[in-house]
Amino acid sequence: MKDVKYDPDDLIAALATPWAESALAVIRTSGPECINAVADIFSANNKLKKAEGNTIVYGHIVSDNEKLDEVMAAVYRAPKSYTGQDSVELFVHGSLPGMKKILELLYRSGFREASPGEFTFRAFLNQKMDLTRAEAVQEIISAKSRQAQSLALNRLSGSIENSINSIKSDMTDLLASVEIQLDYPEDEVEMPDVTASETKPIEEKMNRLLSTYQAGKIYQEGVRVVLAGKTNAGKSSLFNLFLKEDRSIVSDIHGTTRDYLESWISIGGIPVRLFDTAGLREAEHPIEVEGIRRSNEIIDGAHVILYLADAQEGITADLKAFMEQYREDRRCVYIWNKIDKSIVSAPDEFIPLSALTGEGFSILEETIRDIVFRDQYVPHNEPVLDSMRQKKLLEAARDSIDKYNQALKDGMPMDMAAVDLTDALNSLGEITGEVTSAEVLERMFSNFCVGK
Amino acid sequence: MKDVKYDPDDLIAALATPWAESALAVIRTSGPECINAVADIFSANNKLKKAEGNTIVYGHIVSDNEKLDEVMAAVYRAPKSYTGQDSVELFVHGSLPGMKKILELLYRSGFREASPGEFTFRAFLNQKMDLTRAEAVQEIISAKSRQAQSLALNRLSGSIENSINSIKSDMTDLLASVEIQLDYPEDEVEMPDVTASETKPIEEKMNRLLSTYQAGKIYQEGVRVVLAGKTNAGKSSLFNLFLKEDRSIVSDIHGTTRDYLESWISIGGIPVRLFDTAGLREAEHPIEVEGIRRSNEIIDGAHVILYLADAQEGITADLKAFMEQYREDRRCVYIWNKIDKSIVSAPDEFIPLSALTGEGFSILEETIRDIVFRDQYVPHNEPVLDSMRQKKLLEAARDSIDKYNQALKDGMPMDMAAVDLTDALNSLGEITGEVTSAEVLERMFSNFCVGK
Repeated sequence: MKDVKYDPDDLIAALATPWAESALAVIRTSGPECINAVADIFSANNKLKKAEGNTIVYGHIVSDNEKLDEVMAAVYRAPKSYTGQDSVELFVHGSLPGMKKILELLYRSGFREASPGEFTFRAFLNQKMDLTRAEAVQEIISAKSRQAQSLALNRLSGSIENSINSIKSDMTDLLASVEIQLDYPEDEVEMPDVTASETKPIEEKMNRLLSTYQAGKIYQEGVRVVLAGKTNAGKSSLFNLFLKEDRSIVSDIHGTTRDYLESWISIGGIPVRLFDTAGLREAEHPIEVEGIRRSNEIIDGAHVILYLADAQEGITADLKAFMEQYREDRRCVYIWNKIDKSIVSAPDEFIPLSALTGEGFSILEETIRDIVFRDQYVPHNEPVLDSMRQKKLLEAARDSIDKYNQALKDGMPMDMAAVDLTDALNSLGEITGEVTSAEVLERMFSNFCVGK
Repeated sequence: MKDVKYDPDDLIAALATPWAESALAVIRTSGPECINAVADIFSANNKLKKAEGNTIVYGHIVSDNEKLDEVMAAVYRAPKSYTGQDSVELFVHGSLPGMKKILELLYRSGFREASPGEFTFRAFLNQKMDLTRAEAVQEIISAKSRQAQSLALNRLSGSIENSINSIKSDMTDLLASVEIQLDYPEDEVEMPDVTASETKPIEEKMNRLLSTYQAGKIYQEGVRVVLAGKTNAGKSSLFNLFLKEDRSIVSDIHGTTRDYLESWISIGGIPVRLFDTAGLREAEHPIEVEGIRRSNEIIDGAHVILYLADAQEGITADLKAFMEQYREDRRCVYIWNKIDKSIVSAPDEFIPLSALTGEGFSILEETIRDIVFRDQYVPHNEPVLDSMRQKKLLEAARDSIDKYNQALKDGMPMDMAAVDLTDALNSLGEITGEVTSAEVLERMFSNFCVGK
């Protein structure tokens, strides 16, 4: 692994756009004295140095009197920048050797390559955003469906931070009333009533937020849906129908083994990694055993299995065998395909479909959605938790409150029980990043992409 | 093919960065009233409308009161913009569903998808650049080596335009003196001496520029170098050595068949598409015949063939057979590899090399460069022509001058010969785009990438 550094006083630079030929590429820089450092390799040197924040200066990147590229330089002045530091973003031609030349020149001119997430890390350090927002930045980028992107955008605007702060505020009130009791012994003042019931509203808020986690995770990470069934049952047609109907197709996944098809789509807002095992299950050759093994692996790891039956063929031996093998597997959806070509109506457990005409498709989509969210709380218009880190800390806070209540019940002295409340408050503080260790921070940000 | 439109009064929008997850993406817009049109879907509506040119406004992209993304909007006001029109560039999160949402919103809000090269086409129409510079824009982007990128940048700054203008100026002078003769018949004024010798300096300038074309093409398009030789002769080591030594490696080429390795590298500034046919030539199975066929195809299409011999094995039967087959093929370079492991010195025609230690590598690089530029004029510090279109027009201009000279020699009347001079001037005008037809323009720009 590369050497990951997070010293906020360094001048850093990185390509913020993908490493590919394109009309435009953006090189992001940040750090104290960043503007002067970029000006040193910029033709309109003085204009850049004197530029006001949020303005754009035209010029050339110059090295040893050679022009490396014609660029626009966007100048941001602290604290009004993404990082909270002085910052310059260079809009350069999307030429691979060109970008490389400019980056190398920057690295020779006092800048170092930014570590993953380092720009956002600085934004966090400079209090431009709390940790829950910082995490949302990367989630927005990697969101695989519109719904996932919206939820992450919501977190970026502070929805989780606000929820946590509201819980923290309740906790602080509680702790204050507990501390009054500690300061003024029983015989001196009238006791405020501090009992387990006091923590109930807090726990309810915590539980409510925690209950959104599974759904949040589904939106962020997506689910695996696999198409199964005999050759010619219409798997490819259904695969294509999914791609066609889904207006928010994200991208094909490249670089995977080409024995099966795989694509990110979105079904009712859920990011779905759709697999078509076409060609995998029909083993005649010994060499195809490997294919079957892989096909089974994909089916085993799936959240939803769509088994296509050919309405023209009816209930075949294959179908029966599959239904027997996967009996009571609640992930299975049986599809009675090619209803456009057959008058045999679908048996009870089957969804009638024509992958050719699209008839029955919306029912299929609903069915998939129902399976994915079965037994799960689906939040509406409220913050959705999707970070494992945040979930664990929130659970730790809840556990500390449980311990506090147990301590009260056990008749422990109040000052000892109060320690649990402080623990709970600390866990909440870790979620937003007030009391988070450097090590945890670095681990968190190292999962980001470079340039962010 | 998509419907390609180039109406400069339309509002256009396109993603200018690659369609991939990344820290940042840029959506480019242009057109009359462009700023107001973007403001309609922007949270800081008034701030954007009132923004001065070359400034950046922070806000959200909003649709039906829903925030689609948090963005920075760079405002450019006509004529101080790339296109010469009002223009807004949106810096958005590099989220695939997010970009898609914003683009779709733009297309619903009066913008249409920009055709390839349409932004540059508008820059040309608004006289921000002539045609030779416009062509250079796409060349910069697709440049595969630093040298190629520099040459294209040079053209963007007007080096070809200046050369052509200089030739045009000479032509215009010549035509003027010819026209004086036509206006004043022989018996009235003393004749200026208009003979074939007058056109010589012009033709020389043309020939000089034309002579740079082959080298320009090599820099722009690159050459194909293939590694051949027996298994274990060190082809893979040499392939890796090329990648390691070449600090300007551009990228691996993905999506190709994986039977052979392929990568863009740069050798002495020349973009090289390097092929390693490892594993292709060793046929034992009948199925591998296909491999041999493909390997031969790659060798046939190569500009340079590097044949590796293992110094430990010496001159093998395979090597002899290869040398026999490719006798007098001037593309071949024979490499005596593994000199670190053998004391047998290299035979005459061989370059001694250790792909392991790198010894002999610089001589190999020079040899490749020599083969590539053999019989070719290599320009130094002068404009380099690399566009087939420009080359053809320049040749047409030269041919017209030939015809003019021939006409004079044949004793044709001056007014008829002068037509050829006008033709030549028109061809030159087409190079820079003064007299270029709409059809030619559209064909030219349609080769650009979208967003440029």
